[in-house]
Amino acid sequence: MDTFGCHIVADLWGCNVHKLTDKDYLEKEFTYAAEKSKATICGVFFHEFSPQGVSGVVILAESHLSVHTFPEHGYASIDIYTCGRHTQPGLAIQHLICSLEAEYNHSHELIRGLKPKV
Amino acid sequence: MDTFGCHIVADLWGCNVHKLTDKDYLEKEFTYAAEKSKATICGVFFHEFSPQGVSGVVILAESHLSVHTFPEHGYASIDIYTCGRHTQPGLAIQHLICSLEAEYNHSHELIRGLKPKV
Repeated sequence: MDTFGCHIVADLWGCNVHKLTDKDYLEKEFTYAAEKSKATICGVFFHEFSPQGVSGVVILAESHLSVHTFPEHGYASIDIYTCGRHTQPGLAIQHLICSLEAEYNHSHELIRGLKPKV
Repeated sequence: MDTFGCHIVADLWGCNVHKLTDKDYLEKEFTYAAEKSKATICGVFFHEFSPQGVSGVVILAESHLSVHTFPEHGYASIDIYTCGRHTQPGLAIQHLICSLEAEYNHSHELIRGLKPKV
């Protein structure tokens, strides 16, 4: 497999608080976002915290998509990392920004897996 | 919970190929690395690919630690993201660089969860 990968981290603010607390909703939306990026899903693991907040990871054949929510701050931190050149991780991020109704978002894209020049 | 978080992504090259193919070894070492960073483990999910390669995620109360290995390239991509100020994610990365016997590594640290100035 090609080591080249695209890793996008995104901080979403002003999200819909109810959605940030709804584990089932998040699991459904993140699974859909992974499919939208054309990645292959190997496993889905979501965990609900008390009194609130959800962490979840979708394990991909190409790497992973994760979320950690802070409903009390209207904040969700997301990252998607996909190896190879057949996926479109940006589509997953765009879907999730809309789905969580983020008022503000900041994304940062990292290229991974480039062989060192040593 | 404090939204402040530290997200370190690390590309490790020239790793011990046998370790990169050994799901049980990786699961043990990544669990230990998470503990070393003083994070709290909520779940551990590792997946072995055919013919080789492993993807794994340790879900933390503070976020996650992940790995994706490419034994045929001696390459492992790692990221650890911990929210709050009580953890030391750099210790996890340092442990894993030694454990996987990486000859070369490149790390990049991102600060997450800073409230936008809008």
